[in-house]
Amino acid sequence: MPATPYLVVDEEVLRDNIARMAARGRDAGFALRPHVKTHKCLEIARLQVQAGAVGITVATLGEAEVFAEGGFDDIFIAYPLWVDTAKIERIRALAQRCRLRVGVDSLQGVAQLARAAARAGAVPLEVVVEVDSGHHRSGVSPGEAGGVARAVIEAGLACAGIFTFPGHSYALGGGRAQAGGDEAAALAQAATRLRAAGVEPRIVSGGSTPSLEFADSSVATERRPGVYVFGDAQQWELGSARADEIALTAYATVVSHAGGRAVLDSGSKVIGADRAGYATGFGRLLDYPDARIVLLSEHHAVVDMVGGELPELGSIVRVVPNHVCNAVNLVDKLV
Amino acid sequence: MPATPYLVVDEEVLRDNIARMAARGRDAGFALRPHVKTHKCLEIARLQVQAGAVGITVATLGEAEVFAEGGFDDIFIAYPLWVDTAKIERIRALAQRCRLRVGVDSLQGVAQLARAAARAGAVPLEVVVEVDSGHHRSGVSPGEAGGVARAVIEAGLACAGIFTFPGHSYALGGGRAQAGGDEAAALAQAATRLRAAGVEPRIVSGGSTPSLEFADSSVATERRPGVYVFGDAQQWELGSARADEIALTAYATVVSHAGGRAVLDSGSKVIGADRAGYATGFGRLLDYPDARIVLLSEHHAVVDMVGGELPELGSIVRVVPNHVCNAVNLVDKLV
Repeated sequence: MPATPYLVVDEEVLRDNIARMAARGRDAGFALRPHVKTHKCLEIARLQVQAGAVGITVATLGEAEVFAEGGFDDIFIAYPLWVDTAKIERIRALAQRCRLRVGVDSLQGVAQLARAAARAGAVPLEVVVEVDSGHHRSGVSPGEAGGVARAVIEAGLACAGIFTFPGHSYALGGGRAQAGGDEAAALAQAATRLRAAGVEPRIVSGGSTPSLEFADSSVATERRPGVYVFGDAQQWELGSARADEIALTAYATVVSHAGGRAVLDSGSKVIGADRAGYATGFGRLLDYPDARIVLLSEHHAVVDMVGGELPELGSIVRVVPNHVCNAVNLVDKLV
Repeated sequence: MPATPYLVVDEEVLRDNIARMAARGRDAGFALRPHVKTHKCLEIARLQVQAGAVGITVATLGEAEVFAEGGFDDIFIAYPLWVDTAKIERIRALAQRCRLRVGVDSLQGVAQLARAAARAGAVPLEVVVEVDSGHHRSGVSPGEAGGVARAVIEAGLACAGIFTFPGHSYALGGGRAQAGGDEAAALAQAATRLRAAGVEPRIVSGGSTPSLEFADSSVATERRPGVYVFGDAQQWELGSARADEIALTAYATVVSHAGGRAVLDSGSKVIGADRAGYATGFGRLLDYPDARIVLLSEHHAVVDMVGGELPELGSIVRVVPNHVCNAVNLVDKLV
């Protein structure tokens, strides 16, 4: 074992999470294209594909390159890339070794991609139009999707369809159900607009781990959840993962009892500093459900045990990061 | 240049920041022992030592090992390490190549360190007692410091003095001045307790970048600021760094204008997710002082330009991370 803090994956829970999501896709009739930014591991992505995933989703060209190198042959970069001369060369190299899709969310993005592709020669990639379904991050409004898809075709590129990320599913109360409904409505409207513009949306792609159980699979043909492989404190608090479904924790040593609290060596440099508005702390302890990380700095996580007994000095506890993707991004290896 | 996002250091501003802090130490009469967790760069630490730093501060054994390997001969691990068998061997190896100090903040920590050191044979390290000056993270109360220092001596170890981190200086209004005053009071009280226990505190060590201009240098003999080398949006908003003193930014591409906002590719995986209670956003734009990052996810920073003109799609903007230490921790190289 390395010195604490380090991140540990419970392989049995991981395999259960992968199998459960794969079964959900089969039962509801959607293709599963998991987002691998959560784990960044070839081994875990292979388990997902073995369980039935049709391909993978990535966020960056660099991730696409690593997974293509690792043998994955169907990759969607679900991001509105701004494609300059350097990027089109990387895209061309990628498109020669796997089926590649990239996102766009503006007419200017289409024009930029078309110019780069024209200079680079034939690049056999497919474009997917990003639609904003209520998260208000990137993506065109559903009403604009047809025009962008039409521009893709007219620029001589292939348009595979539409995608959205209903990130406003990260909310308490009825937020997850609301986001699931918003996603279905936005995708349905955008699909109609594409058809009206003469573009058949073969791919109608949705997210996300929290909204998935509220999603309408009569609309979306594929889904791109990421966090479900590990779970995290956010999913735990949103109600989309139970404690016994959490597959990744940071192992941390109790280094101090200052002020009657447990001070752990798992700071923000290993669990990340994410704290959504609804979060009850900076992270949780898997074996102490009432405890909360109330103060987090780079190398200290200060835990209020909320009346529970203090874990012994020098003992190791299991910390559940708020947002597992950013924790994984902080380490070179998972144990 | 790499593809965006990447972190860029303005070397001229960096050198100015280093020189200004060194001059402040000379003028006020404190020894400067900068915290290198901020930059994690041998080259920058060398500039700090060339400018007059007496040694360096680190947060972890791993950092101490890297800097000792890089030739640094006076290293303080300002952290209450829990020293087990594996750690004492690493500490012994370190103490053979540099002057090494480590923190402790409990009688149990002293006993644990003494047991490990006794098993390992002679380890020529010095112990520094951590005192809580109001941040309530780690550290004993000033009144307990004498007893812990006495225990260090009675365990056969050397006690060099006391240290504190007035982290409650990260607050608006009078917070920085208050923390500076609290630090002086806590260190003075703790020093008195050490002397009463028969231990002369040769080292009386304080922090922090925000509190430094309010610090009382009649009490502290040394200071351990870290962030001053780069500055960041937190220091900018706290008033402890001006915009033209910020030496590190993330270069980011404008990838979308969705919703009339600028969407950048510098997400939390390169600028970190830190957002203190007083922060006005998830980060700032160096060249657009009114703009704010209002939504941050792993690969998207959504910027409200607050009435200002939108930077062009495909253009590169300079993003000031909220907390620079966590941004640096996310990359392998600084440009």
